[in-house]
Parts: sequence; C-alpha cells; structure tokens
Amino acid sequence: MTTDVSRSARTGEAGEEIAASAASDVQLALTAAREVAATLAATSPAQRRDWLIAVADAAQAATEQLVAVADQETGLGEARLSAEVAGMAGQTRFYTDVAAEGSWLGATLDPQTDTAPALGRVQMPLGPVAVFGASNFPFRFGTLGNDTSSAIAAGCPVIVKAHPAHPLTARLLGEIATGALRDAGAPEGTFAQLVGFEAGTALVAAPEIEAVAFTGSQRGGMALWEIANQRQRVIPVYAEMGTVNPVVVTRGGAGARLAEIASGFVGSFTLGMGQFCTKPGLLLAPSGSDAAAVVGQALESAAPQGWMLTEQIGHSAVAGIAELVDAGAQVVAQTPAAESGWTSPATVLRVEAADLIRGEERLLEECFGPVALVVEYADDAERDAVLAALQGSLAAAVMPAGADDPEVPALVGALAGQVGRVTVGDWPTGVAFAWAQQHGGPWPATSIPSATSVGAAALDRFTRPVTFQSTPDAALPPALQAANPWGIPRRVGGRLESPSPEGGPA
Amino acid sequence: MTTDVSRSARTGEAGEEIAASAASDVQLALTAAREVAATLAATSPAQRRDWLIAVADAAQAATEQLVAVADQETGLGEARLSAEVAGMAGQTRFYTDVAAEGSWLGATLDPQTDTAPALGRVQMPLGPVAVFGASNFPFRFGTLGNDTSSAIAAGCPVIVKAHPAHPLTARLLGEIATGALRDAGAPEGTFAQLVGFEAGTALVAAPEIEAVAFTGSQRGGMALWEIANQRQRVIPVYAEMGTVNPVVVTRGGAGARLAEIASGFVGSFTLGMGQFCTKPGLLLAPSGSDAAAVVGQALESAAPQGWMLTEQIGHSAVAGIAELVDAGAQVVAQTPAAESGWTSPATVLRVEAADLIRGEERLLEECFGPVALVVEYADDAERDAVLAALQGSLAAAVMPAGADDPEVPALVGALAGQVGRVTVGDWPTGVAFAWAQQHGGPWPATSIPSATSVGAAALDRFTRPVTFQSTPDAALPPALQAANPWGIPRRVGGRLESPSPEGGPA
Repeated sequence: MTTDVSRSARTGEAGEEIAASAASDVQLALTAAREVAATLAATSPAQRRDWLIAVADAAQAATEQLVAVADQETGLGEARLSAEVAGMAGQTRFYTDVAAEGSWLGATLDPQTDTAPALGRVQMPLGPVAVFGASNFPFRFGTLGNDTSSAIAAGCPVIVKAHPAHPLTARLLGEIATGALRDAGAPEGTFAQLVGFEAGTALVAAPEIEAVAFTGSQRGGMALWEIANQRQRVIPVYAEMGTVNPVVVTRGGAGARLAEIASGFVGSFTLGMGQFCTKPGLLLAPSGSDAAAVVGQALESAAPQGWMLTEQIGHSAVAGIAELVDAGAQVVAQTPAAESGWTSPATVLRVEAADLIRGEERLLEECFGPVALVVEYADDAERDAVLAALQGSLAAAVMPAGADDPEVPALVGALAGQVGRVTVGDWPTGVAFAWAQQHGGPWPATSIPSATSVGAAALDRFTRPVTFQSTPDAALPPALQAANPWGIPRRVGGRLESPSPEGGPA
Repeated sequence: MTTDVSRSARTGEAGEEIAASAASDVQLALTAAREVAATLAATSPAQRRDWLIAVADAAQAATEQLVAVADQETGLGEARLSAEVAGMAGQTRFYTDVAAEGSWLGATLDPQTDTAPALGRVQMPLGPVAVFGASNFPFRFGTLGNDTSSAIAAGCPVIVKAHPAHPLTARLLGEIATGALRDAGAPEGTFAQLVGFEAGTALVAAPEIEAVAFTGSQRGGMALWEIANQRQRVIPVYAEMGTVNPVVVTRGGAGARLAEIASGFVGSFTLGMGQFCTKPGLLLAPSGSDAAAVVGQALESAAPQGWMLTEQIGHSAVAGIAELVDAGAQVVAQTPAAESGWTSPATVLRVEAADLIRGEERLLEECFGPVALVVEYADDAERDAVLAALQGSLAAAVMPAGADDPEVPALVGALAGQVGRVTVGDWPTGVAFAWAQQHGGPWPATSIPSATSVGAAALDRFTRPVTFQSTPDAALPPALQAANPWGIPRRVGGRLESPSPEGGPA
C-alpha cells in the first residue's frame, strides 16, 4: 500500500511517513457515513451551520500551527497560507449562510387542481461524498474548504482522501475538523479522512458513496471518472481538471497599456509559481504589438521566486516547457529557478497562431506552473480561430483599453461560450466566494460543466430533486411543509414567495 | 443504412418505408444548428415563446391527422392519442411560460465590494441538442414534446432522431414543426429531424452537439451514454431508462381496502398495455393479505386489451415473463393477448421476498409491458430489505389506509432516497407537467438523477452557468444588465428580487 511521506518543498527533504488506511478502516468510514446519512439529511441547515462554524473557528484558532506545517510541505509562504486559512474559514461560513437561506433547496409547491394532484419538489442531500482535494490550495481546496464545507452544509457526510502532497497538513486539518464536529454535537460519521491511493480508488468504487468531488490534474480526474462510470450504479464525479484560461488583449488595450497588461499577466501567471487552476496560460495580443517581448521583459523584471508543490509538479513543468518547444514554441524569457527543493523556471514562450489553429495538441493544453504562451493575432478572424481551437477553460480574461472599449462586448460573448467565468480588465487568478461565482467550465476544464466548486451553487452538486405527490403534510420534508418551519423562499403555485423577516412564511 | 418502416401495431403489416438520412444530410443539419446556436441563445425567452406556441397551435390544428397516423403505427387508440396531442401542446406552452418567467436563468448579481469584484452569474444555453424520443409517447416524448420544447425554450437548437417505431408520425410532426417555426420567424437551423440508426449515433458523436436527451430502454440509453463518454469533449446524456417503480401497501391499506388497491394497481400497470415509464412493476403487500391472488382476480376481471408498440417490445414482454418464471416467479393470473399484431398477455406474477433480497437480478429489473410482480413482506425489516434491494426508480407509491395512516411518513422518507417522485394514495402512472414535477430518478432510472425531463426544471438540462466579472453593462447578457430588460427575478447582493408586475425591475 502507498505510504504518504511529508516532504519539504523547499529542500525536498523527507519527513514523517503517514501510513495508508487499511481496507478495514476504509470500510469502517464508509459504513459510518452511510449509517449517518439519513440523520444528517434530516438536520436543518441551521443546525449544520453550527457544526461548520465550529470547524471554521477551530481552524482559524490553529492558524499558526496549520501555516507552519503547510509551509514546510508546500513552500507557499506564510502570508499566502495565513490568508488561505482565513479564506477557508470565510468560505465555510458563507456556505452555511447559503444553506440556511434555503433557496438552494428549490422548494416548489403546486397545490392540487381539478386536473393535477398536489406536488412538492425539493432538493434532497445525496448521501456520502468522497472529496479529493488539490495540492495547490491546502486549505481552500484541501481536507476542508469548498468541497467539504459545501457538502456538509448540503447535508451530506464527507470522506476525504488526504492529499499526498501535504499529508501532515491534511492530518492536522482532519484532527481539527473531527474534534470540532464532535464538540459541536455533529453525529459520528459526518466527517472522516483516509490516507493512500488504494483508499481513494476504493472510495470511488464503494456503493456507499453517492458523489465525488475532485480538484487536480486531468489524468487524476479522468481516472476517478472512469472508476465511477464502471460502477453498477454510476455516480457523478465533479472533477476540476486542466485548463488554459486564455487572455485576450484588444487592439485598444495593446495600444493604450501593453506594458501594464504584460506586468499584470506576469503577476497572474506566476502567482504561487503558476500553481493556480485559474492561471492564465495563454495571452492573445494583436500582431505588431510585440507582446511576447514585452511580457518577457516584464517577467525578467519580476523575477518570481518560489517552489513547486511537489517533485512531480516541478518535473512536469520543466518537461512541459521542453514539450512546448518541441511543439514549435520559442522561449522568449526565463528566470532562474530556486536552487533547492522542487523547482521550475518561470518561462514565457511565443507561439504562432497558425500552430494553435491547426490544433497542435501540446500547445493547446495546460502547462501547470509558472509558464505561459504569448500569441499574436493578425485580425479578428485569426483571433477567433485561435480561441475556437482552445479547449474549454475555467476562466478567460479580456484586457481592453478601458470599460468602453468597443471590442469588449463581442469578445465577452465569444468567450462566454468557452469558459465558466469571463473577466474584463481583471486577472482570472482570484476566485471570490460569492453568490454569483462560477468555478467550473466546459470539458475538460471540469467533468460536469453545469456545476461549480466555488460560490453559492457549490451545494447543488450534492443534491437531487424529489417530488412528493399527494403526500400528507406530516410526511413531507420540512422544506415543503405548510408551516414552512425553516422560513425559506419557496415557489407556490408558480409564484415565488419570500419568507417574512420573522422567518415564517410570507 | 437502416431504413425505417411504418408498421401497424394492430396487424404487424408493413407500410411506407422512410429512407435513412444520408451522412451529408446529417452534416447539413449539424452545421445549421451550430451556426444558429448563438443567434438562438441571444433571443429572448418571450421571442422563443412565440415560435413554440406556433408549433403547439399547428400540432393541435392537425390533431385528427396526427392521431390517425399515430394510431395506425402505435395501436394506442384515438382517445389516448388525442389527449396526448393536447398534452404535448399544453406542455409546450408551459415551458414557454417557465422560460419567460425567467427564474430558470438563475440571474445573480454581486455588486463590487472593497474586497471582491462585481460578479454576475446566469444560465446560458448549451447549444445544439440531440433528442431521441420514446416509442411509448409519440407526442409527449417524441419528435416534439418535453425534450424538444424545453430545449428550444431554453434557447438551444434541436436535432431530433426520428423514432423508428412510428416513422410516419415522426415525419408528420417534423413537417408541422418545421413549417410552424418558419412561419413564426424562427431562424433556419432551430429544428431538424433525421432518420436512421446511423444518423443517431453520428449525432451523439458530432462535435456540434452539446447535449443529448433520450427516453427509452437501458440498452439504448447506455449505448448513447458510452458514445458521448468517448468523445474528445464529453457531453451530458440525459437518458431516461429502465425503472421498476415499486408500490408499497401498508398494513392499514391492506386491511382497509386491498381489493380497491388491487384494482387500481391493475389499472395502472396495464394502462397503455404497461408501456409507461412510470408503470408500477412491483407491489409489496403485508404477508397474509394474499395480495397476489387479489391482484390476479382484479386482472382477470379487468381483462385489458391492446397492442404492444413494436414487434420487439411485444417479444421482449413475452420473453420477460418467461425469464421471470425461470428466476423463480410464479404466474398468478394471465389474460389473453390480442390475436393479431404485436402483443403480450397481461400477467401478474408472485415472487418471494427472499429472492428479491438476495439480489436475483431478473426479478429486480423492469419488464416493460403489462407485467407486474407481487411480493409479500413479513415485517418492516423484510419490507425495507426488499426496497433496499431494488435499483433506483422514477417513482414509487405508498398505498395507505388513508392520509393519517401512521406508516406513511417513514415509508415516504425511505422511498424518497430511492426514487425521483413519491406518491401517496395515487398511482404513479400519470405525470403532470407542473413547476414542482420531477421525472428522473437514481441510476439506472436516469443517467443524470439531478435532472428532470418533465416540469419546470426540464429547461435546466440545456444550460450551463457563466459568471461575468467586472464586465461593463453593455457586454452583459440581458438577464444581468442593470435595467433587467427581461423583467426576471434576480438575486442581487444575496437577496431575491422579484420584478414589478409591470415587468420591469422591482
């Protein structure tokens, strides 16, 4: 069985070994989650809010310890990691607010008519969810964070497969969550964490599991998706995978502020050493702007320093640069990598529009790390042809001269067909947690493009609608009962009804 | 290439042959749908309402002709088919109302704050949808009906693969739709219909197609799902497949009104000769109630008469009865099949709870046609074990003594975990189109259990959320513009806002 080993990103040095979960421990966790699922589903969102806020508070109280462990394993630095703990706690509280507000339940009541029976429809929790966090956000997409918080807020037990890139961080987070949930009164089985590759594949295949949330590489996501598709009862795999996240500089933008854009682009694609799923990996600029050289100069003056999260990610980034060159890209600028630990040089490459348009595969795929391509487009047709050659992405950005740049509307419209989020004038790297956030994009950016792993709709992934026909009030779930005990917005007879400020029905 | 042949269900006689679409015609339809997709997506739901109402009106105006053709091909009878044309037209109008109301767009605006950019999120149409209708509802789930209407209402072009069980009905519906859409001003490419197996598989594999809606057998649904999963860019396949739809008679129900329940059960499972996806295929009754014999008597006095939709469906039903017997079921009652055409005897079989609990596969699977199993349960534990052994279903029914039967709440709760719709005291066969309807259930009843093919949420299948960050108003889709030009409900800063009655923003 695979043992996780904690390693320092800065030196590569091996530390503590964490034993893989035994098959019997996997089964114990699955059984506990299955057994508690109905209990959890029957709790109110307000009750689950108390539990999750306890987890957020406990994690924040342990910030110093968490950051120390995570910094050793990830090399991401204290400032970033401290902010990430706070962000994780804030997200968790946000999901509990979303859950308590209740719109996500989609409660809909059609009273009986002469020709139709009484119907009530509501989103019900799916049951046990397997969470596979990411290496690059140990707190916001790790043992805790978006997936775990939104699944529990939605009323589903969670079993996490600890990420091998930061096993001690995962273990500490697991201990904090387990303790806080127990102290807050959450039932046994609400949360568990397992270790090791075998435990992860066993989870996805297990009949007790109802959904999978994954953030990571396309290879990893596809592997889990294939296991899930071979189950007797197929379950959804919400996998966030590779994504290029193109940036388009308009003619006006290039004319007015190319140096500023280049500097912003470098800041965005080298943030966290390019280890963001929202890293912009390709800049399209009008021909004659000499954008590749301008971006290259910006990289050289920024000279970003940092470490890669794992040895494999470092190797893949270095290999990726070589593959891009083999596929026809030219290195424009490269800054030296750190001298120890897991590293990759930050690199800007120039690529020909024609090579992208004819579908040169390696040039069209993500290169995870501080690596970006710059391409020049001769005219709108060539720009659109390059965009059409790209795969779906999580995000895309338009960099105009200003808000009234006449090229913006058409570009926003075109990009909206290819990504989950379009930004104008903003870099895509930051992902605010908010009601209106979408973090998911067309295949292969995510496996289920109608879903999001950040924002209010993150809860929706872990529910399924059920309609109750001619069902007595006492047998209805609370969200559909006449008294509206949870005080949630509902649609009754086709009309939206908001609850009164007192919390009862309007 | 496969040629569709129109055949009389009542006599088996072959009529007109309909040539399969040539590969070049398939590509023409795909290209037209792809080219019109952005135009369609940019139209308002109100504009699409006009087109779809024109289709509904034209179909209703042709009711006599449609029913004559469909009755010849399906043997379903004029009364049922006339009602179905009206139902299809009513559904179509309903989807246009849902689309125009606008909640389905999920328009959400988070204004800019000190720490977060302005975000706006909205559901956008996916693009061209391939529709594979069912044999059993030529109007409500055919060339037109739930899938086609909800997809166009959502702003997606539709390409239908004509059902080979009723090719002339399909052709006539296609002609009506094409003419009505053209006359109403819908752009070329909004709707097309293709003929033949090869055209169907080509559609699912085609890069132009963004989603598939299918209603039919598990074999057919899985085949399309597998093609879609092997695409370079995987797309969602919304397949409604096999389903058993269990009915549980409570002890009180058996004591108070078993004969009435048995008679209702026979009416429900032989409706349309059992060719409903919501046919109740298994009745669970308390032991000692002698329910199998009572249901058998009810079948004999009902003596249902009718035809099967196709030769294959008739053969499968007859073979299914034999397979059920081989797997341990005993025939309790059987009424004679029609003497000509495609037929199956209506049949009640008795099965032991133990055989279901130990997972005897054939007994746990749907037998499409006028065939049902009756099982007796000794106690709650055995009842629950039988229910747990079943696969997911579209629907389940509880048959209690009355609304205050104390067994109802727990049973409703248990069944809600296994199906998409629970009815109490009602038979599951009828599926009202309404805001609160859910027609979809856990795998394998449907491939995407979070979706529905009937009810307001049917539109959601054909959309994907996109978030617009820091985007100027003029570049936003209408649903997110400050003036709220479509007058739809929106969430702004986390609060739901209903439009004023005049249609402008509140």
